Amino acid sequence: MTEQTKPNNNMDAIKRLADVVDARRADFLAGKANPDVSYIAKLFSKGDDAILKKIGEEAAETVMAAKDSRFANLAPEMQSKLVGEIADLWFHCFVALSQFNLRPEDVIAELERREGVSGIAEKAARKS
Amino acid sequence: MTEQTKPNNNMDAIKRLADVVDARRADFLAGKANPDVSYIAKLFSKGDDAILKKIGEEAAETVMAAKDSRFANLAPEMQSKLVGEIADLWFHCFVALSQFNLRPEDVIAELERREGVSGIAEKAARKS
Amino acid sequence: MTEQTKPNNNMDAIKRLADVVDARRADFLAGKANPDVSYIAKLFSKGDDAILKKIGEEAAETVMAAKDSRFANLAPEMQSKLVGEIADLWFHCFVALSQFNLRPEDVIAELERREGVSGIAEKAARKS
Amino acid sequence: MTEQTKPNNNMDAIKRLADVVDARRADFLAGKANPDVSYIAKLFSKGDDAILKKIGEEAAETVMAAKDSRFANLAPEMQSKLVGEIADLWFHCFVALSQFNLRPEDVIAELERREGVSGIAEKAARKS
Repeated sequence: MTEQTKPNNNMDAIKRLADVVDARRADFLAGKANPDVSYIAKLFSKGDDAILKKIGEEAAETVMAAKDSRFANLAPEMQSKLVGEIADLWFHCFVALSQFNLRPEDVIAELERREGVSGIAEKAARKS
Repeated sequence: MTEQTKPNNNMDAIKRLADVVDARRADFLAGKANPDVSYIAKLFSKGDDAILKKIGEEAAETVMAAKDSRFANLAPEMQSKLVGEIADLWFHCFVALSQFNLRPEDVIAELERREGVSGIAEKAARKS
Repeated sequence: MTEQTKPNNNMDAIKRLADVVDARRADFLAGKANPDVSYIAKLFSKGDDAILKKIGEEAAETVMAAKDSRFANLAPEMQSKLVGEIADLWFHCFVALSQFNLRPEDVIAELERREGVSGIAEKAARKS
Repeated sequence: MTEQTKPNNNMDAIKRLADVVDARRADFLAGKANPDVSYIAKLFSKGDDAILKKIGEEAAETVMAAKDSRFANLAPEMQSKLVGEIADLWFHCFVALSQFNLRPEDVIAELERREGVSGIAEKAARKS
């Protein structure tokens, strides 16, 4: 495997994970998922607010892990914890996207659209 | 362009955007960025708390946009706004990752590591 | 002034502040407030989302100030900053309450209703 | 009981609730509280991050309840839910204050100090 292809495969993890989340949601909607054994099925069974609340919660955990990491001078175990919290935050974004019939690719396309447009001009454009 | 390659290129937007953010940070650290004209440079000049605060703020905006979209029965313009807010949230995660010497690839590798491990067992493993 | 009355007067600050916020809102609704000179009038002119976003933002700032205070072993200047951030959070709650035709007294009455009911039993009751 | 005194007593609920929280913390620190039966003791046994995470979580729930209330045209049951979420947010602020050796009176004194100072001038003063 070349250096070139590995990162691409790596990036594909987002799509594969979104596929898994979407499959769980399809199972849940078809009455085939068991909320007692699957964490994702449990979130879907609870609905919008339970999913969205997790985004607020994981954002707070990301902020705390970042502060811990800084105070530990970016010690490896703290950096791992920070990466884990951002992974949690993104994971729950994938669940939210599925719940609202959207895909991470939609978000990435929006980021791509903005790419090249930058700085305060872009900020102004987004806010106006 | 094949169906196969397009999504990969699409996913590469994350890496390219992280590269842009890292380049702005390197410029800022070298005293070459102008916080008055670049939104990203301005965030780096303000430091950790300004960057982390944006994660809390964009998480709140994501939650509000999701509620708006549901109440509008997922109307296209509301879905676009939701996608835009999640893009804002992820973008500020990229800035935070750069600020803490990390990369989106680290987060994606963590998500990949978890892939296959799923459900309540994984949740339990993450929390213990 | 006795020790007895001072704390009550102190607590009355919440009511007086809510009265000020309500008066600003009444002025704004009557077209008499100037969003350019009053921070509160500006928030009311922007509406629900701008006000609610501040709650997410000030919650994140409270979390960061608390972490800073712990890492500084509760040094006085960090404790003051934490108190200031919680004051910001509560202040924006007062603005939100006014925006939704509610009062801090409604929240305090709810807290009073719960008083005496405690522990996990109360938690269960709130969530069911 | 006169109209005059009732609101003061009402406001005293904040002090009484903070006293209860402080007493639970003292019990916990003395090894006398049972985290299995008391929700507050459980929070203290988990420490800073568990307590601060609740502030992020309850802020998100407040934002969602406010959106629900607006979409329901401030229907009474939605307004009650919003009041309940803000009560949850304030309650967990009381727990955080106790955890950091502070009191709601400190926050109210800070709000009182700011009273009279208002508008954009105050905002500027707080941020500078």
